Amino acid sequence: MISFTCDYIEGAHPEILRRLAETNLVQEPGYGEDSFTRAAIEKIRKAAGAPKADVFLLVGGTQTNATVIDAMLPHYGAVIAAQTGHIAVHESGAIEHSGHKVITLPALEGKIREKDLQDYLEAFYADPTWPHMAQPGMVYLSFPSEYGTIYSKKELQGIHAICRKYDMPLFIDGARLGYGLASPAADVDLPALAGLCDVFYIGGTKVGALCGEAVVFPRGNAPKNFFTIVKQHGALMAKGRLLGIQFDTLFTDGLYQKISRHAIDLAMELKRMFIEKGIPLHIDSPTNQQFPILTKEQMKRLEGGVRFEIWQPLEDGSSVTRFATSWATLPENIKTLESYFM
Amino acid sequence: MISFTCDYIEGAHPEILRRLAETNLVQEPGYGEDSFTRAAIEKIRKAAGAPKADVFLLVGGTQTNATVIDAMLPHYGAVIAAQTGHIAVHESGAIEHSGHKVITLPALEGKIREKDLQDYLEAFYADPTWPHMAQPGMVYLSFPSEYGTIYSKKELQGIHAICRKYDMPLFIDGARLGYGLASPAADVDLPALAGLCDVFYIGGTKVGALCGEAVVFPRGNAPKNFFTIVKQHGALMAKGRLLGIQFDTLFTDGLYQKISRHAIDLAMELKRMFIEKGIPLHIDSPTNQQFPILTKEQMKRLEGGVRFEIWQPLEDGSSVTRFATSWATLPENIKTLESYFM
Amino acid sequence: MISFTCDYIEGAHPEILRRLAETNLVQEPGYGEDSFTRAAIEKIRKAAGAPKADVFLLVGGTQTNATVIDAMLPHYGAVIAAQTGHIAVHESGAIEHSGHKVITLPALEGKIREKDLQDYLEAFYADPTWPHMAQPGMVYLSFPSEYGTIYSKKELQGIHAICRKYDMPLFIDGARLGYGLASPAADVDLPALAGLCDVFYIGGTKVGALCGEAVVFPRGNAPKNFFTIVKQHGALMAKGRLLGIQFDTLFTDGLYQKISRHAIDLAMELKRMFIEKGIPLHIDSPTNQQFPILTKEQMKRLEGGVRFEIWQPLEDGSSVTRFATSWATLPENIKTLESYFM
Amino acid sequence: MISFTCDYIEGAHPEILRRLAETNLVQEPGYGEDSFTRAAIEKIRKAAGAPKADVFLLVGGTQTNATVIDAMLPHYGAVIAAQTGHIAVHESGAIEHSGHKVITLPALEGKIREKDLQDYLEAFYADPTWPHMAQPGMVYLSFPSEYGTIYSKKELQGIHAICRKYDMPLFIDGARLGYGLASPAADVDLPALAGLCDVFYIGGTKVGALCGEAVVFPRGNAPKNFFTIVKQHGALMAKGRLLGIQFDTLFTDGLYQKISRHAIDLAMELKRMFIEKGIPLHIDSPTNQQFPILTKEQMKRLEGGVRFEIWQPLEDGSSVTRFATSWATLPENIKTLESYFM
Repeated sequence: MISFTCDYIEGAHPEILRRLAETNLVQEPGYGEDSFTRAAIEKIRKAAGAPKADVFLLVGGTQTNATVIDAMLPHYGAVIAAQTGHIAVHESGAIEHSGHKVITLPALEGKIREKDLQDYLEAFYADPTWPHMAQPGMVYLSFPSEYGTIYSKKELQGIHAICRKYDMPLFIDGARLGYGLASPAADVDLPALAGLCDVFYIGGTKVGALCGEAVVFPRGNAPKNFFTIVKQHGALMAKGRLLGIQFDTLFTDGLYQKISRHAIDLAMELKRMFIEKGIPLHIDSPTNQQFPILTKEQMKRLEGGVRFEIWQPLEDGSSVTRFATSWATLPENIKTLESYFM
Repeated sequence: MISFTCDYIEGAHPEILRRLAETNLVQEPGYGEDSFTRAAIEKIRKAAGAPKADVFLLVGGTQTNATVIDAMLPHYGAVIAAQTGHIAVHESGAIEHSGHKVITLPALEGKIREKDLQDYLEAFYADPTWPHMAQPGMVYLSFPSEYGTIYSKKELQGIHAICRKYDMPLFIDGARLGYGLASPAADVDLPALAGLCDVFYIGGTKVGALCGEAVVFPRGNAPKNFFTIVKQHGALMAKGRLLGIQFDTLFTDGLYQKISRHAIDLAMELKRMFIEKGIPLHIDSPTNQQFPILTKEQMKRLEGGVRFEIWQPLEDGSSVTRFATSWATLPENIKTLESYFM
Repeated sequence: MISFTCDYIEGAHPEILRRLAETNLVQEPGYGEDSFTRAAIEKIRKAAGAPKADVFLLVGGTQTNATVIDAMLPHYGAVIAAQTGHIAVHESGAIEHSGHKVITLPALEGKIREKDLQDYLEAFYADPTWPHMAQPGMVYLSFPSEYGTIYSKKELQGIHAICRKYDMPLFIDGARLGYGLASPAADVDLPALAGLCDVFYIGGTKVGALCGEAVVFPRGNAPKNFFTIVKQHGALMAKGRLLGIQFDTLFTDGLYQKISRHAIDLAMELKRMFIEKGIPLHIDSPTNQQFPILTKEQMKRLEGGVRFEIWQPLEDGSSVTRFATSWATLPENIKTLESYFM
Repeated sequence: MISFTCDYIEGAHPEILRRLAETNLVQEPGYGEDSFTRAAIEKIRKAAGAPKADVFLLVGGTQTNATVIDAMLPHYGAVIAAQTGHIAVHESGAIEHSGHKVITLPALEGKIREKDLQDYLEAFYADPTWPHMAQPGMVYLSFPSEYGTIYSKKELQGIHAICRKYDMPLFIDGARLGYGLASPAADVDLPALAGLCDVFYIGGTKVGALCGEAVVFPRGNAPKNFFTIVKQHGALMAKGRLLGIQFDTLFTDGLYQKISRHAIDLAMELKRMFIEKGIPLHIDSPTNQQFPILTKEQMKRLEGGVRFEIWQPLEDGSSVTRFATSWATLPENIKTLESYFM
């Protein structure tokens, strides 16, 4: 049985496990004060071309989203997201639990459009009752989006310009950032992305780590006492070394990029295969998540041999499905999958 | 340089790293749906003598405290803790951030006293203005306490009886539970403790794991949809296997107990040594944290060779210090430490 | 200058002012323990045909919505509302501030449709990822809605049945309840409405009082310690007598109903007049808010003489406008208004 | 039966009722946009010698405390209060419900001492673990305190200086501000007090109004979008005129001061009487609350004729009691009371 259900079905990249074992008995202080975390932060700053960046290592995605959003929004502030955005759908109301409304905009294949954002803001402030409403205070987008799509440089520039105009930080959820940047469709690299937002995070969990998300405030613009806010949100790891070692490893010798490229190469292979087999794609995704529409019969054939995720059942019995690759995907598994469609 | 500063300065017990490596490529679903987590839960139920227990694996201590307390308290409820309790002091206001007051009682060497609790509750309800106050809705205690002390069976029975009388759950923070149960002074074992409270957690982070706290509702009494509440608090790990494998390992062949006993044996060795050297102990701790009072001169001598924590500076220049042992403490390190006091 | 902008532009019904003056020096305890409040509660129970109802007098609408919703939702719960519902739009994120997501359904002239609710719930629980989402825990509707429309008995029965099936309380925001019940289109009275929901409130502010909303849990089903929850939300009035006297007055000799009927009679007069003048109505509202579409020229004519609210500017320069009547609306003001359209 | 239980047992000063009746039919916009509120704000600015002050009229005390504190504290911030402070005791955990810890300092007759505050802050920042704790972000004090005592100018200067040094706003709860300023012991007037803090409120509810507290940010230093924050906290009154008219009346021709002096004169009369009768005073209160210690026998004698509050029962059967005067207290009632002690 092989599985393409998502990009976190295996453990960690072996190099991470090796480093964990190698450093296991080194005695280091907790809570991110360890030397591994310091080294990781330095390497992330370098990779992001942001020497003054404030960098914090948190454990998981929902937690990171809730902590960053709560820390950066004023009391009366709401966060704007695509209606398909992770914070609007799959985070159990964690943002609202921290006191903030999520304002949703229509999404085009998972992405906010500059025009929709601009229109929304204009209409909001044109309504004289706006002081009676939670006020747009931040924009959230995911790169890649929940549908595997990515924003172009031009799109990011447009959205960022609107954010600046309305004095709202732009926050990029990079749970799968590596896969987005490694996509053949990407026209931004990490430094460019860092320059086009106010805070983002580099996903570890889905890109080869056991856990961990590195929050980056690229211009040293972390909210005051962000460390305490992180702890208050239950997001501070006692053995911070676990996060430090992982990110130090991922940002040594370009491992994060290598892992990401591997996944993208295999995802493009997957896509090519689906197209060759005449299987329609729900979305033309340029990243590690592919969304073929499989017939009932095709899904039946895969049963017992290949796992994947049902993304959305369709009226005719077929389904939009999701196949994800990762650092751990084996090329032969794609061959095996292909054999089911012969 | 050797360090006794705390019990989370090294990585994980080697057996955990071995299991992580061994299972690394097994494909498993996320969010605690993996087979390792299921196995861990079964073993924890068995060890706790609680076959119907609801068990959830969370990442860290502050997070676990905030999630459990928020989930179990009614909106108008406050949690009662010792004034030295972790939730009252060192959690950045995480409990209040989730909307609940922490009511503090005087602590005797880190412990709540049954009489203080009873007196407080009687006085609270004798005051006719009580409906204008946040209402005691839960009792929190730590086992062992922040001062290394442990509650006797009789003390737990007394406190639990009061909790039942006032219809409040009793919550035991077991961040260092293993060390408490392995103490020569302990007269409860895990099943007894499980029977004397309504929810507790088995600390992993400080007892050999990289991270992880296993929350146990011993009588299957988890709040409805606790899974969603955990996610809402940012405490759900995507690669739940990381927690599952660790607790499965810790509860295989009594590893958790072995680790704990090792630390306690060495702590008792430490204590004996301090006493022999005429070094006064601030608290007669029966667990893995020891609190010798060192003179300025003694502390100076240790500089550069041995690390420890300053617990509380005293007027005369001496300090209450903390020396902690763990699964990783080497017997020879105690010998080395001893040599400084010759 | 006369104004139809809304139903809270004057003070209170004169009888209320008379009673306030008359009782001014009577010494009474605070916080709702006064005899006026007790009398008001008794009268409200009687009017609602709910002798066991728990009744609480709060100050204002947003406050009441936030308090009731927070008190009745579990931690993981979200409230379902029409996308035009007051809590979704004009309450500054007060619901989210108390930790809960507002799930919006499409609205038909301000109303939720039974089918949309049923479809949403089926789709929600059909999605296997539902435990990762905030869970629908309550339904909120306003009677009349923000567009002046009202639910029929059949619609309420349908929605209430769904709520029971999914074990969610149904909450009716009755900020303008009197006007809804007095509408010629209404086929429910107060006891019927009380029987078709789990909690509702009787709006005072917009129906003749200076302030005040009477929350009714018709079957004595108030959440435990609701008094404390009210205070915690800042919604407990020290001089509770102010609320008690007002509701006692409103529910003496059917004043609440008389006030409501007066406003409805004049609103129907307004509507008839608009129709006669060939002015189109945006919504066929059966209650005290009317929504004529006025041309630029008509609006210009009213300038300086009649105030109303711009509800929604239209592309062609005309606007959906709102004209509201209340207890205080003078019949001659409608004549005056009419004269502008001659 | 006459009552001295508190200062909110009657309705409003008759002049307020007169003005409410007189203006009842004037049509005015809601939410504080009315002309009465504008006039009230202007008069309050003048009275406070703070022409640039931001002034907001809220409904009640707990609500005002929770709104102001939440608005001014950063996410990681806690508010410091006397352990007897209203927010620490009698507000149902409203502050914590908005996410913030209340740090309590020992109180001397209801007051924080400069030295305790300084010592606390020094100790806090001397502890290297301070980033793991909720951080002191604001100081709350009540003037007069819950025990009727008042701060001297020198005390306020001292506390304010510490606040400035630690960059924390000083917030003065003036629920009974009038009585404090009218006390013969007061050496500050309203402008002086406004100059010695960063935000305070002028209590209406307990000083002659039906309800209402006027929040003053003396240097125009209201948090951005405070209006929206007020609404979010459920503290915005729809018929803002009710608050506007009351404060406009209270600040016309010095009514607020007259009311306050009346109460203070009678309180001093009460105090003189208790002393003459040999009745000990628990606290030498210079304001409108007096705390005589009555014997069981004395309390028995008052039964059926005079109401007062039991403040604190004592071991020997006697009790600390509270007798409060207000704008409405009749001189003859003090004579009547005196007659019981003949």
